[in-house]
Amino acid sequence: MSLFEKHQGAIERAIQANRERVFYAHYPENPKAYGEEAPAAGLHAFQVSMNTDFSELLQQQPIRFEGEEVSPYLQTGLGIRYPVFADKIVVMRAKEAMKQWRKVDVQTRAGILVESLERMKNRFFEIAHATQHTTGQSFMMSFQASGPHAADRALEAIAMGYEELTRFPQEVVWDKPMGKFNIQLRKTWRAVPKGVSLVIGCSTFPTWNTVPGMYASLITGNTVIVKPHPKAVLPIAIVIAELQKVLAENGIDPNTCQLAVDSSKFPIAKEFVAHPDVKLIDYTGNSVFGNWLEAQQILGKEVFTEKAGVNPVVIESVNDLKAVADNLAFSLSLYAGQMCTAPQNFFIPAGGIQTAEGHKSYDEVVAALTAAIEGIASHPKMAPGVLAALQNDQTADRIKQVAGMGKKVLVGSHAFANEEFAEARTASPLLLEVDASDKATYEKELFGPIGIVIKTKDAAEGLQLATELVAAHGAISCGVYSTDATFCEQAADAFAEVFVPVSFNLTGPIYLNQHAAFSDFHVTGGNAAGNASFADPNFINRRFVWVGQRYA
Amino acid sequence: MSLFEKHQGAIERAIQANRERVFYAHYPENPKAYGEEAPAAGLHAFQVSMNTDFSELLQQQPIRFEGEEVSPYLQTGLGIRYPVFADKIVVMRAKEAMKQWRKVDVQTRAGILVESLERMKNRFFEIAHATQHTTGQSFMMSFQASGPHAADRALEAIAMGYEELTRFPQEVVWDKPMGKFNIQLRKTWRAVPKGVSLVIGCSTFPTWNTVPGMYASLITGNTVIVKPHPKAVLPIAIVIAELQKVLAENGIDPNTCQLAVDSSKFPIAKEFVAHPDVKLIDYTGNSVFGNWLEAQQILGKEVFTEKAGVNPVVIESVNDLKAVADNLAFSLSLYAGQMCTAPQNFFIPAGGIQTAEGHKSYDEVVAALTAAIEGIASHPKMAPGVLAALQNDQTADRIKQVAGMGKKVLVGSHAFANEEFAEARTASPLLLEVDASDKATYEKELFGPIGIVIKTKDAAEGLQLATELVAAHGAISCGVYSTDATFCEQAADAFAEVFVPVSFNLTGPIYLNQHAAFSDFHVTGGNAAGNASFADPNFINRRFVWVGQRYA
Repeated sequence: MSLFEKHQGAIERAIQANRERVFYAHYPENPKAYGEEAPAAGLHAFQVSMNTDFSELLQQQPIRFEGEEVSPYLQTGLGIRYPVFADKIVVMRAKEAMKQWRKVDVQTRAGILVESLERMKNRFFEIAHATQHTTGQSFMMSFQASGPHAADRALEAIAMGYEELTRFPQEVVWDKPMGKFNIQLRKTWRAVPKGVSLVIGCSTFPTWNTVPGMYASLITGNTVIVKPHPKAVLPIAIVIAELQKVLAENGIDPNTCQLAVDSSKFPIAKEFVAHPDVKLIDYTGNSVFGNWLEAQQILGKEVFTEKAGVNPVVIESVNDLKAVADNLAFSLSLYAGQMCTAPQNFFIPAGGIQTAEGHKSYDEVVAALTAAIEGIASHPKMAPGVLAALQNDQTADRIKQVAGMGKKVLVGSHAFANEEFAEARTASPLLLEVDASDKATYEKELFGPIGIVIKTKDAAEGLQLATELVAAHGAISCGVYSTDATFCEQAADAFAEVFVPVSFNLTGPIYLNQHAAFSDFHVTGGNAAGNASFADPNFINRRFVWVGQRYA
Repeated sequence: MSLFEKHQGAIERAIQANRERVFYAHYPENPKAYGEEAPAAGLHAFQVSMNTDFSELLQQQPIRFEGEEVSPYLQTGLGIRYPVFADKIVVMRAKEAMKQWRKVDVQTRAGILVESLERMKNRFFEIAHATQHTTGQSFMMSFQASGPHAADRALEAIAMGYEELTRFPQEVVWDKPMGKFNIQLRKTWRAVPKGVSLVIGCSTFPTWNTVPGMYASLITGNTVIVKPHPKAVLPIAIVIAELQKVLAENGIDPNTCQLAVDSSKFPIAKEFVAHPDVKLIDYTGNSVFGNWLEAQQILGKEVFTEKAGVNPVVIESVNDLKAVADNLAFSLSLYAGQMCTAPQNFFIPAGGIQTAEGHKSYDEVVAALTAAIEGIASHPKMAPGVLAALQNDQTADRIKQVAGMGKKVLVGSHAFANEEFAEARTASPLLLEVDASDKATYEKELFGPIGIVIKTKDAAEGLQLATELVAAHGAISCGVYSTDATFCEQAADAFAEVFVPVSFNLTGPIYLNQHAAFSDFHVTGGNAAGNASFADPNFINRRFVWVGQRYA
């Protein structure tokens, strides 16, 4: 049985899930689904990987080994070094591997790629520990985001790719009646890959944000170079190692997907970007570098970005104020605001809001929000579980810097204890309050656990300001609270026009931060927060070119 | 019955045709299919339109009327003036109209757009005369290219748009099992149009090259400004006038699609391009302006180009040399090489080629080609019928300039008589011969009836040079002649890697110039000859953004 036959059912279900967009998870997010022995085995595997050289890759002849990962929980280096290669060698190998990979049919490609996800699945727990100790996420988020959710996003991209590549016939007879005779041509079409694909990872979601572009490029016949953030290598190194093994087992050059590790001191992303053979670039990270990358499109490169956004919440009216405040506080607190989808700006009307329990003043709304945030931050179990740890010191510094700007502080940020990891780098959310006129404070992304309450004349002004901000600076998520159907429709229209998805009236255990594979397009690609979307048809179709042949 | 119901069958057949890519023509290319009275009525309508102001548009309050079309057959002005509007007013109206059009559902949009093609159909003969007397095409080509073939390309774009916009559900209930309870969200998705769409026409194919982008933008909810070439306005003005009438009849602002005429003296394309509300740009024309347009993508504009290409023919071996020479001579001669798909560079091995009648020397191959070209150029009926007329004097000047470069002239260009139009601007093909080393001569597009025989060491060198040229300068079509299956496969691979479609061994009445709607992707979008393709999924999907809404 070929790998395609083995995984055909999974591919077909994923294609259907992409189309239907109702709930679908190929990989269960509950850790218990993976067997009783998996947790201990994963922890053990992670522990033995520390303080060693990572030797699983099938890439030959590294020039040296390097590594600089530091656990946000231990605040000590992981001691893992990765093979380093000259960038020109990496591109040369990618180009060489492409001679073979481009000729592999889409069924075989899909079979190999899904098989690699199955191998990744066997290491979800190990990847979870690797993610926790590089990103600072909680263990549960590390498991879900870097494991099943990432694998589902990869499968989503494979399925979308499979569907697009099989959308047109490989061969037909074109038979044109000309009156007394017919003209016949045999026609064939090929989906021709664009070239070497570079995927630049980020420090907070090293697999979730990397695998969509990586698998989208691979299914469409491009070979891939993954350049991870030097502080978050191990999770994606494990994924690539497993993929390389599957490639090699199937007679495919493992350089079809390479890991290219660099260091903070000697970054190599720009060398890869400038290389003429690199035609596709996927990127998650800050807007300055993202905008520079997008400008490379005039050199004929296709660039897929996810950059910074300023995510707003507009409150017009609610049923249950406490439930709303709890939901928003959780959204802001989850992984200490280090999700690209975390809310930052909370627009609250100066005149207060209507609730099912009557009118609540502005101060009461703010008080509910601050109480909810403090409730998480001061809770000995919730604080470490929800807020987790800060990935890096710059985020800790940013909190201090923003707190010291002289704005009204509604909730101060403080470190909190983590029983399991005494050295964890922690910070609870900082909540500021500013007037609507103080755009300078709230118009940019303040990455980390920083929220801003913005006092607006009324809800309409909040909607107006939020829409303007998204139009100017981009956003990845957005929340609206209103029991007024007309206001909701206005908000849906306004935010659609600036290309941002909106979540209405979320309470309980579902948050605007969460974007589900096979249902929510992640980033729309339409505003300044990014030019690509996981995984809409553009995410696939921009990676290859339909080329026809006609034979008389 | 709604317009959608009226045309649903046509839309569904077109969607199926897009997928199957076998022969399909919704609008027959045979003029006889349109009734006995249509030809005379069309001629009459064209004649009465001359020397009058074009008053069919539903755009209000022009600031003046202007027109500068000159018939290449009569070499006198058509005397037709078109309403002119300030560019800012045009964009303002487009933006205003979009408030309504973006909210019109895709079924209604599709019904209106297909209905406009049906109205266009009633004027195919008038459009044919308008095309002949602006582009210099023969009447038959004018009829087919600007009439049924253009309408088919428009329908192809509508169908591809309809398919993409209905690909995901408008609304679902997302129901996630959480163990003890389920999370339910109502989710909706909208295909949000990107903004005002500018379509810049060319002087040689004023409807064929304009309607794909125009209808692709319209079906996806964008409003459109068509800026035709000032020397070729009438054909597309008729199409837009018919569309505006259908829009108005259905209560839609006719400014949903506007004609924006400029003049050679005061061009306004750049003003439109620079306007912040213009988000989509379609363009057919020279590479200098096309490259400038593509660079506007760093300002967040989506740009779709068809630019210059250098189309090669590689001859390795043939069955019937005369049949091949006849076919190639016709391809070069058709509309005097003013098709973007016309061949320019003929790579012929110095050692000659194998044929079914034995080996033919290089000189014999060249002699067959020159004889075939001269056969058309000297034939009193074929010359005017096939070569037609030159659209403008620059092309006539280019022929003289190239002929005077001091290269070996295999066939000289000369004017020929046109019995019907004594004043027609005519020129037969110029055929040069250069050595493979003389790249400076053949590496750029020499627009018009100019062919170059390039003497190569062998067929492999011809393939190599042709591939390099396509990689560096782009191509839209390509011909290969070989009876060797291995060589054909090498050529298919080599040209696929530089993203150009190849036609193999065409003889008889099918030419590499011809790209059929619903089957051949026109331009691949992968090389320097253009970044878009009629009508692949990218041609549609780049015009709108999927935006989701989630309701708790």
